[in-house]
Amino acid sequence: MNYSEMTKEQLKALHYEVYKKYEELKGMGLNLNMARGKPGTDQLELSMGMLNAVTPEDMMKGKDEMDFRNYGVLTGIQECKELLAPMIESPAENIIVYGNSSLNIMYDTISRSYTHGVMGSTPWCKLDKVKFLCPVPGYDRHFAVTEFFGIELINIPTDNNGPDMDMVEEYVNNDAAVKGIWCVPKYSNPTGISYSDEVIKRFASLKPAAEDFRIFWDNAYCIHDLFDDDFAVILDIAEECEKAGNPDMYYKFASTSKVTFPGSGVACIAASKANIDWITRQMTIQTIGHDKINMLRHVKFFGSFDGMKAHMKKHAALLRPKFAAVLNSLESELGPTGIASWTNPKGGYFISLDVMEGCAKRVVSLCKEAGVVMTSAGATYPYGNDPKDSNIRIAPTLPSPAELEKACEVLVTSVKLAALEKLI
Amino acid sequence: MNYSEMTKEQLKALHYEVYKKYEELKGMGLNLNMARGKPGTDQLELSMGMLNAVTPEDMMKGKDEMDFRNYGVLTGIQECKELLAPMIESPAENIIVYGNSSLNIMYDTISRSYTHGVMGSTPWCKLDKVKFLCPVPGYDRHFAVTEFFGIELINIPTDNNGPDMDMVEEYVNNDAAVKGIWCVPKYSNPTGISYSDEVIKRFASLKPAAEDFRIFWDNAYCIHDLFDDDFAVILDIAEECEKAGNPDMYYKFASTSKVTFPGSGVACIAASKANIDWITRQMTIQTIGHDKINMLRHVKFFGSFDGMKAHMKKHAALLRPKFAAVLNSLESELGPTGIASWTNPKGGYFISLDVMEGCAKRVVSLCKEAGVVMTSAGATYPYGNDPKDSNIRIAPTLPSPAELEKACEVLVTSVKLAALEKLI
Repeated sequence: MNYSEMTKEQLKALHYEVYKKYEELKGMGLNLNMARGKPGTDQLELSMGMLNAVTPEDMMKGKDEMDFRNYGVLTGIQECKELLAPMIESPAENIIVYGNSSLNIMYDTISRSYTHGVMGSTPWCKLDKVKFLCPVPGYDRHFAVTEFFGIELINIPTDNNGPDMDMVEEYVNNDAAVKGIWCVPKYSNPTGISYSDEVIKRFASLKPAAEDFRIFWDNAYCIHDLFDDDFAVILDIAEECEKAGNPDMYYKFASTSKVTFPGSGVACIAASKANIDWITRQMTIQTIGHDKINMLRHVKFFGSFDGMKAHMKKHAALLRPKFAAVLNSLESELGPTGIASWTNPKGGYFISLDVMEGCAKRVVSLCKEAGVVMTSAGATYPYGNDPKDSNIRIAPTLPSPAELEKACEVLVTSVKLAALEKLI
Repeated sequence: MNYSEMTKEQLKALHYEVYKKYEELKGMGLNLNMARGKPGTDQLELSMGMLNAVTPEDMMKGKDEMDFRNYGVLTGIQECKELLAPMIESPAENIIVYGNSSLNIMYDTISRSYTHGVMGSTPWCKLDKVKFLCPVPGYDRHFAVTEFFGIELINIPTDNNGPDMDMVEEYVNNDAAVKGIWCVPKYSNPTGISYSDEVIKRFASLKPAAEDFRIFWDNAYCIHDLFDDDFAVILDIAEECEKAGNPDMYYKFASTSKVTFPGSGVACIAASKANIDWITRQMTIQTIGHDKINMLRHVKFFGSFDGMKAHMKKHAALLRPKFAAVLNSLESELGPTGIASWTNPKGGYFISLDVMEGCAKRVVSLCKEAGVVMTSAGATYPYGNDPKDSNIRIAPTLPSPAELEKACEVLVTSVKLAALEKLI
């Protein structure tokens, strides 16, 4: 029954019942975690062939004519660029392959802009004020990077089509202190939504007040579909930016962290030639190049992009029941109550749950007391501050299905309990 | 015969002879390289066991109780810290293991100091002036990192015991703009000299005017001895700094780039707990951690530090004849002439050659014309500017012994020719 239609007495009776249920769950001494967007062990097992994909019998030279084992090849081996090109949807020559962490590339990109500017612009450390737009709810580690550099973070609301583009245009086209925006355009973290064609075209057509404004397009879940017959296809920001006369306005990021091994994947950036040249100037000073054998390992393990796509279907098969378990629990337990809403993603790693305003912190704290760790309430907003205190990120990938079922029971019970506490 | 004892006529006759010899070598269409401190292919073959050191049958959890394949373990797996501890001579808890490049750690360290300061000090980007001391001749990539951040580089002469410590003390103890010094304390690049106990004790006893002054102790060749019975042992800067009451004043860097594979090794920093805590604060924002499987690969391939030391003996066996070939050629061809001097390293990757003042650029250019690429003259000095134009870095490791012999013939002939051009 919808809580809003219940009398005070009914709510009180229900509170007693839910409280009893909560205490019962608490008594079970659970120790579960729905906080981390980490692949489950079953997913890691899919990539064990990586470990002996490169053997002592392999040719140790490739298209770059350099020994994979030795120093050299600053921007990544050609074979790996070609493997990743269809994933990040840019030609090999517009790609730099890094080490294992796309977050590290993004950090580097912000750090380089801060110390040396962007393609000749004033270094951000020499400016009085730098601002970044943050579609919310979003990814805490994005926000943390910009916060670490003292950049002012501005919330941009999102709906099912992506960020509020009126607001984005207003800021970007008029305020030269606005230097970038964090985007997860496909199966967004945490909402799972994908940007509509119109949103992406409006992104590409921005007329930034700042010459060094860049769209940080973190396509972390570009090939991370859950279903064979129901998946998102988004426009390529590079192509749209070129069409709109803004060829240098984006950086695309991607990685194989959630394709092979999260700790031992390869990450890459794609951008216009002018941007790639500017980045390479720094890389020449920063390193002699990233791990080429690990790049080769990926090339050999997958053979081609088709191999990578086939591999992703195996991930999807393991993840579908986990997403379904959470969604079923939310639907059956919270659906009738009217006290929460959530997203139903077709891919990615998260489900976004909105509980009653002012209740998210309480829900997460109740979960914790009952042995279920959730992402901190507020984490999906800059400075950890969710103005409505209502958003909770659910990460269903790491626990086993049986654990998930238990964890969801705790979660929905906590959502109800917090709402009832507020209503009575 | 010593050139200084020859008459003008004798010199002219010799010039004619040397010139003929040079033209003859030039006619051979050589294509050789003594510029790069890269291991030879024979050395890379020593580590092929790395490629299948970790297999699908291995336990995927270790002392940190985290899956090696997944996200997590920010500062490196415990097993790898323990492997590297005796190499870098610091306890595991004072070590952070990074990716494949110690240069990248050094870049990060400078960049972090520039953007965020050092343990609470003013970020260097907010200061009018930052200076760095550069013992010369030294490593061009060190100098390049600090130059990239607009830091003023100051030459510090070195002798067989290390940098001129009177000058170092004068700068460090009196000028708060001096924030660091680049050191390669053992088998220095390019001279091959190792710092004496007295030099290291004077380093440890500095009384810096700047609270954020740090010694950048790049122990790149810490276990890279050429001989079993004749090798350098240097004092540990960490221990000496602690004894002298300066526990936070150093960063030690090392890597396995010239132990296993240059492109796929592991690199580390060791420092006091206060420094490690400060660095970790940044790393938490920068990455989710480096490649743990590659760390495990090193642990399994070597078994222990003894395994690593045994492995280094195999490198030494391959390198000794190469160093000997160069030294023999210098000794027999240039020894009697009095126009050059050079170092006789017991380890490391380089031999440092000083030719007649004002001749280094000419020598390198003559070599190039005859098909032998040497490190650019001046590269061993900040801003590529060797005030005496006399130092040339010889890297004997990459060419085969037969190639080395030819390359040395070109080199010594060019040294003679340049000197004779100057003398007549």
